[in-house]
Amino acid sequence: MLKLIQYRLCPLSRSVRLALAEMRMEVELAEEKPWEFRDAFLAINPAGELPVLIDADAPPVCGVYAIAEYLGEQPADDPEEEKPFALFPGRRPERAEVRRATDWFNGKLHREVSCELLHEKVYGGLNKGSGHVPDTNILRAARANLRYHMSYVNHLADERRWLAGDAMSFADLAAAAQFSSLDYLGEVPWEEFPVAKSWYARMKSRPAFRAILADRIPGVSPPGSYADLDF
Amino acid sequence: MLKLIQYRLCPLSRSVRLALAEMRMEVELAEEKPWEFRDAFLAINPAGELPVLIDADAPPVCGVYAIAEYLGEQPADDPEEEKPFALFPGRRPERAEVRRATDWFNGKLHREVSCELLHEKVYGGLNKGSGHVPDTNILRAARANLRYHMSYVNHLADERRWLAGDAMSFADLAAAAQFSSLDYLGEVPWEEFPVAKSWYARMKSRPAFRAILADRIPGVSPPGSYADLDF
Repeated sequence: MLKLIQYRLCPLSRSVRLALAEMRMEVELAEEKPWEFRDAFLAINPAGELPVLIDADAPPVCGVYAIAEYLGEQPADDPEEEKPFALFPGRRPERAEVRRATDWFNGKLHREVSCELLHEKVYGGLNKGSGHVPDTNILRAARANLRYHMSYVNHLADERRWLAGDAMSFADLAAAAQFSSLDYLGEVPWEEFPVAKSWYARMKSRPAFRAILADRIPGVSPPGSYADLDF
Repeated sequence: MLKLIQYRLCPLSRSVRLALAEMRMEVELAEEKPWEFRDAFLAINPAGELPVLIDADAPPVCGVYAIAEYLGEQPADDPEEEKPFALFPGRRPERAEVRRATDWFNGKLHREVSCELLHEKVYGGLNKGSGHVPDTNILRAARANLRYHMSYVNHLADERRWLAGDAMSFADLAAAAQFSSLDYLGEVPWEEFPVAKSWYARMKSRPAFRAILADRIPGVSPPGSYADLDF
């Protein structure tokens, strides 16, 4: 069975968990605390980044980019059987758009919003002895960036059936994973972005999302609306 | 013919130029100054990031990740004819390692070193009226990071024929592109990392590298060793 080294609130880890669930592939989860930079983990992924996928047939697959493409190349067990879900659907140009949008969410949004808020509000405080106090300037900047990203999602969801085109793709999973981590922190002003909200409601109600909505971090409780499908 | 919207010193743009040259695909270059954030460019790529590939058959392919995978999926004109160069060679596990290493160079190294040095030493100054003065703390941190990345390249080049395995891959092009931009700025302490240097000498002597070694930016001259194959 596959094993995923991940952290419950890490949005990049969540995007891969969603992908595996949509593809109906079983996975064993191993927790790694990304703020600890343990030597044993750095020996597996020298970049110190989550997630890492362990497949019996291969060396560790490190990072969300390599993992998503690795899963996208997954040979069907039975070639006659249609795959339950294509991470990168469509022809070459449509696949390019899925990758552009994926990069937006896993790269730009993660860097400008989620990474900052997770560090200031969660990782810093869980890093015992660091004496971390959230920096209000960073929080303010990340929250302003979040509104910009939400208006972009609102725009995409208004123009298209799914964020990267006619079919649900890894871009939707990547975006939903980012928003789910931010939602756990009570950071998402859904009411201001109704089209983005209705896209997220569709994502949230998928069976693949259930495990993520059940996640809890000791000492950090999500708001009541986090797991509510009618938020 | 393909068109690439790029900037001459941008390492991500250079990695795609190297890929196209190794694949023996002709491309017309269009220059975009990444520090200007022109509306006309943002209309093509809302992320405002270089490079962007324009292919007559498709909408703009935005960003190095989408472009590299798009080119990797390039159908051969003549399926009987072998491709001159595979960006992601090997089987699934080997391709995953190429992507991990590519992400290291285009992501981690770019963010921690090249992006910072290019902004402080070049883009800031070319941005007329900004009154930009390089921040010595940022320069010092980026240079320390560069040594860490060079020791990693030294290690990879010592253990393997090419940076991501037995075959030259997009990871080598991505790394060489980053180092070529840093080398233009006279920032690379090659003498301290002899194995990395000998790998870069191999890359630099490839015909695909010639156009990049001929690049010049008005007002910013490279050191004499920049285009010297025997540096």
